[in-house]
Amino acid sequence: MNEIFSKNYPLLISNVRVDGRDTDIFVDDTGVIAAAGPDIRKQYVHEAEFIIDGDRAIALPGLVNTHTHAAMTLLRGYADDMFLQDWLSQKIWPLEAHLTGDDVYWGTKLACLEMIKTGTTAFKDMYFFMEDATRAVDESGIRAVLAYGFIDLFNADKCENECRATERFATRIRSLNNPRIRAAVGPHAIYTVSTEGLKWCAEFALEQGISIHIHLSETEKEVNDCIAQHGKRPAAYLDGCGILTPRTVAAHCCWLDEEECTLIARRGVSVSHNPSSNMKLATSRAMPYHRLAASGANICLGTDSCASNNNLDMFEEMKTAALLQKFFWNDPTLLPAPAALAMATTNGARALGFGTGTLSVGAPADIVLVTTRTACNTPLHNASSNIVYSCNGGSVETTICNGRVLMLEREVPGEEEILAGAQRAASGLVERAEGAG
Amino acid sequence: MNEIFSKNYPLLISNVRVDGRDTDIFVDDTGVIAAAGPDIRKQYVHEAEFIIDGDRAIALPGLVNTHTHAAMTLLRGYADDMFLQDWLSQKIWPLEAHLTGDDVYWGTKLACLEMIKTGTTAFKDMYFFMEDATRAVDESGIRAVLAYGFIDLFNADKCENECRATERFATRIRSLNNPRIRAAVGPHAIYTVSTEGLKWCAEFALEQGISIHIHLSETEKEVNDCIAQHGKRPAAYLDGCGILTPRTVAAHCCWLDEEECTLIARRGVSVSHNPSSNMKLATSRAMPYHRLAASGANICLGTDSCASNNNLDMFEEMKTAALLQKFFWNDPTLLPAPAALAMATTNGARALGFGTGTLSVGAPADIVLVTTRTACNTPLHNASSNIVYSCNGGSVETTICNGRVLMLEREVPGEEEILAGAQRAASGLVERAEGAG
Repeated sequence: MNEIFSKNYPLLISNVRVDGRDTDIFVDDTGVIAAAGPDIRKQYVHEAEFIIDGDRAIALPGLVNTHTHAAMTLLRGYADDMFLQDWLSQKIWPLEAHLTGDDVYWGTKLACLEMIKTGTTAFKDMYFFMEDATRAVDESGIRAVLAYGFIDLFNADKCENECRATERFATRIRSLNNPRIRAAVGPHAIYTVSTEGLKWCAEFALEQGISIHIHLSETEKEVNDCIAQHGKRPAAYLDGCGILTPRTVAAHCCWLDEEECTLIARRGVSVSHNPSSNMKLATSRAMPYHRLAASGANICLGTDSCASNNNLDMFEEMKTAALLQKFFWNDPTLLPAPAALAMATTNGARALGFGTGTLSVGAPADIVLVTTRTACNTPLHNASSNIVYSCNGGSVETTICNGRVLMLEREVPGEEEILAGAQRAASGLVERAEGAG
Repeated sequence: MNEIFSKNYPLLISNVRVDGRDTDIFVDDTGVIAAAGPDIRKQYVHEAEFIIDGDRAIALPGLVNTHTHAAMTLLRGYADDMFLQDWLSQKIWPLEAHLTGDDVYWGTKLACLEMIKTGTTAFKDMYFFMEDATRAVDESGIRAVLAYGFIDLFNADKCENECRATERFATRIRSLNNPRIRAAVGPHAIYTVSTEGLKWCAEFALEQGISIHIHLSETEKEVNDCIAQHGKRPAAYLDGCGILTPRTVAAHCCWLDEEECTLIARRGVSVSHNPSSNMKLATSRAMPYHRLAASGANICLGTDSCASNNNLDMFEEMKTAALLQKFFWNDPTLLPAPAALAMATTNGARALGFGTGTLSVGAPADIVLVTTRTACNTPLHNASSNIVYSCNGGSVETTICNGRVLMLEREVPGEEEILAGAQRAASGLVERAEGAG
């Protein structure tokens, strides 16, 4: 194995393009961008143990995927083109009933590999067997905020169990003391968690100072049911439970009305837009980007799971977001390329509380290098346009997280073993589920 | 240069996955699939001059892009996120006014390179300086149906000139006698070509036995203007001009009503769906796939130009098509993965009249190999789902057109020179245009 992957080293990235200027970046061995600017390489070349030739590459902050169910990579392509309820009840849930911790480990390994290969260095996740997911993230070298998916189905005993599971997971993550990995509280959604459960989650997250992850207003049915049951729309209901905080990421948010957008922004909630998943499952309405932006909300981006997307490529997701917003809201000027890129970088980093999502001095060295020696970056009239509208994650050549090189010239150590392990786990899962069925 | 690129050879592709089965494919040196089946390699291994190891790859028919303005690769990222009219009048047209034949040559070279790298082996194009485009296509090794964009702006003198230019181009292509390259007649649209011009195009195409390419009902304005001017909707008006034929490809078709869908199908017209471009320019309505499909129309797929997409990756376009149809028409079962793949292969081949778009014996050897040693194809529950929803054009490793290997293990001869030449042409074009402005 190439030595550069083995630990943090002082790194010099020479002559890379940052905001249109040729720049050198020096990363120290604590994983921080210690210096950046044109022609500083002479100053740092002797300190650096490795020099990465950035010639003709564009440097970007590592992309941040703010809504995933990472281990569902194992379900990629298992079921598509179905109505949401049929898809869940006939395909996804029966398979998930047979999931093991080992499956989640391999699925999350595959997800982390895919993210590294497509330039994502941090993600926010909600799923089951989260200790196994944690092990995979730890080994991968990327960052994650991980939430155990809290689902009590309005049953008091189940609620109690979910509270204990959430506590155990938070304790476990705290004991790891890994700066790349944080716990979040993960109340799944208003249609799967009781009011008591939601309130407990809000209080526990506040007490622990950790973040919250929740699905919000993905479908119109969720909104209508909430109004019928609680006499108010979902955001107002969640606000009453204490769930809307500056530490909260709310995924989807397709069906927010104007008042909800204002409330979300006022509470400092981050909104994770998931355009591919929303289109594939036909939610029929796109997250109201313009209203959330006008309210000042922090709007970020997520892929959702590989069961409903079916990949974790944030480049593709930036394009789909920019295209969907224009199309649905009938305005080709909406969500221009630089704003889409900000959603996937600075806004995402802010949502997860990992650094600034910029390449500034003092920031964590989460850096990806995108080649320009490729058709998608030729010509190079406008880098942010090419990145959002033309390139995909395959144009990332180097991925660095927390100062550690995780991919160099598209090589990731252990890739073959991860692909084989994930394929084995996926095949075994389907055999067990279909054998049992 | 690797010898395999130099001419047609008898080729054996061993042990590749076709429709879920391990298959060997033998291509003879006339560019035809001479044999295909499990375990036929022993029979052909001695005849083959080259053996391509298909182990762990999926073989697909070469993808067919049915609507491009190929040379507009030079404008990739030059202007985005604008209203259609501002974008055209302030950015695109002023730049195009400075286009030279050399620019179109380099832009088309870049387009062909990008298509080869993303698994497209045939396209239908409309633009200017088409003799230069032809030269680029000829050199590239892929197939194209090329149309000179006929625009008379309702002026009789201009109409006369466009007729002569169309005749000259058709004569020129005929004289080439290249089975990979055909001429089409290219009346741009009803809002840029007079009734006389449209009728002449229809007659000329019929007389020459060549195909027609036209933009149809991209925007609502086009429909409303047509009704105001001609008292009928665009499809009926074009039918009166003789434009709707089995040799016609109509691009966009966002605003067709039910009656127009029936008419289009009855006339045997092929419809080119261009979802990314429609979303980016906010056409507000998606091509009515379900109605066209119910009418029996041949529905295919195109990227449109890199000014409005901004790439030529047909894998991405398949996904966007499947997602947009589901989302806009509110039905997650609409345009399932196998149908999206058929749009980009069999339906496209039928629209362009190049073979069958299948890997059957006797078909032209237009073959692409997609690696499965990658996250996007792991796990491999369902190949067509992975191809449409998970992979992008970067997963293509080998591209063969008309029996000739154009890319092997992602190497395309001359790639660096084409990228450099296109960048030079694009920079020169912008300098001339902005200097003049």
